[in-house]
Amino acid sequence: MASSGSWYDSCSDIQGVLLDISGVLYDSGAGGGVAIPGSVEAVKKLKQSGLSVRFCTNETQCTRDHLVTKLSGLGFQVHRDEVFAPAPAACIFLKDRNLRPHLLIHPGCRPEFEGVDCNNPNCVLIGDASDEFSYKNLNEAFRVLVGLQDPILISMGKGRYYKETDGLTLDVGVFMKALEYSCDVEAEVVGKPAKAFFLAALQDMGVQPQHALMVGDDVVNDIGGAQSVGMRGLQVRTGKYRPEDEHHPTVHPDGFVDNLKQAVDLLLQHRGQ
Amino acid sequence: MASSGSWYDSCSDIQGVLLDISGVLYDSGAGGGVAIPGSVEAVKKLKQSGLSVRFCTNETQCTRDHLVTKLSGLGFQVHRDEVFAPAPAACIFLKDRNLRPHLLIHPGCRPEFEGVDCNNPNCVLIGDASDEFSYKNLNEAFRVLVGLQDPILISMGKGRYYKETDGLTLDVGVFMKALEYSCDVEAEVVGKPAKAFFLAALQDMGVQPQHALMVGDDVVNDIGGAQSVGMRGLQVRTGKYRPEDEHHPTVHPDGFVDNLKQAVDLLLQHRGQ
Repeated sequence: MASSGSWYDSCSDIQGVLLDISGVLYDSGAGGGVAIPGSVEAVKKLKQSGLSVRFCTNETQCTRDHLVTKLSGLGFQVHRDEVFAPAPAACIFLKDRNLRPHLLIHPGCRPEFEGVDCNNPNCVLIGDASDEFSYKNLNEAFRVLVGLQDPILISMGKGRYYKETDGLTLDVGVFMKALEYSCDVEAEVVGKPAKAFFLAALQDMGVQPQHALMVGDDVVNDIGGAQSVGMRGLQVRTGKYRPEDEHHPTVHPDGFVDNLKQAVDLLLQHRGQ
Repeated sequence: MASSGSWYDSCSDIQGVLLDISGVLYDSGAGGGVAIPGSVEAVKKLKQSGLSVRFCTNETQCTRDHLVTKLSGLGFQVHRDEVFAPAPAACIFLKDRNLRPHLLIHPGCRPEFEGVDCNNPNCVLIGDASDEFSYKNLNEAFRVLVGLQDPILISMGKGRYYKETDGLTLDVGVFMKALEYSCDVEAEVVGKPAKAFFLAALQDMGVQPQHALMVGDDVVNDIGGAQSVGMRGLQVRTGKYRPEDEHHPTVHPDGFVDNLKQAVDLLLQHRGQ
């Protein structure tokens, strides 16, 4: 199946590429997940091409160290410093605003918050807590929020769902909406699709948005987020991709590709030599 | 503290009264909850006054039989046929639309759905499932919805929270919002504040909306819902009442009273003799 459109005809000025991880490099799931066919080789070729590459993930079930180790086990060569994830961004956000969070996060993500003052909380911070999203824990977070004069809810991402090896799975955005409604408050999102998140990765590469390409499986958070800062966005037909994404009411990707392998092959064929 | 406004000066034409249960008659909680002071006597006086009385609840943690038994234990004389609750309304809704639900409800409410065909579900029906709102169960409901061509989500109520004896507690509306967001679908609400729910209770009393008064602790679901069909709505300062309700952006109760006792005393003093 050929990609629709001709995004690759105008990609000669691309200098940097941001890659989503889950659904693009691999599908997460029991036993560490599985690499998406062709992706290991594609990442390798991309890094060897001389283009700048960073990994932009909303993964909050583990630390960046753990993620890099997991990816390494699947054959990917990714360094910790190349990974942009919501937890470190959230730590900066909390510090800048003098906030002490009540954390409703995955146990695997806790080490990223070591040293953060969580006493007498004046905000609630949620991540993709998975099974920790119990009624009891949600109620506890709600009671913190409803007890604050001006409730502050911070969410590491706003995704609806992602793909695990055994099927689609609810993401943090669903529980963000639940807590938003409970207290009539609007969450502040850290991670994709927040502009600041993409801009930090671009700044780290030293690449201007108009010379950068995002490759992701989430039409709203990857593609819409990247386009909102002036980048181009390419959607893969892997991970959580669904055919209706190609007729999304508000987000129109610059192109579609079957998978990361096809994206990299077309990009490298058509970039300026 | 006197009630604000003078709703009771114009209540001589009231013929029927609808009472919310939780937060008006009693506060639910461990051990069956506790009656709100003065409410047992108020219900008795109201029923003896000759006014028609019905109980309109969004209770979906138990059957009407169980609820009546629980109220009886607290001293209230309430008959099953006087209670309007979302589960029986939902059963009618399902039958009318030929729907087979995937149920995410409280175990105590299951007997109300005996005989309902739940095989090969073509919709999801949720109630106040409390601890059953686990990540696993929400994910299961999400997978049913996302697998349907036209997802149908039915929610027995849309409340944000209610008051238990140990504090405020998340209500079904929060999880309705979560599932709505997961699949970009709008739930159909059965129970308060749906107009059909109030109209069914009024029809049962044989009272026109303009001659009926709703007494509740939920500004949106009790008062807003009742006013939307042309009834008057009186908010009690018990249960989930919060001072900011008196300055609600969209719903303006016809009056406020400290509790049900005050409502009934004022109503009976000022009604036409």
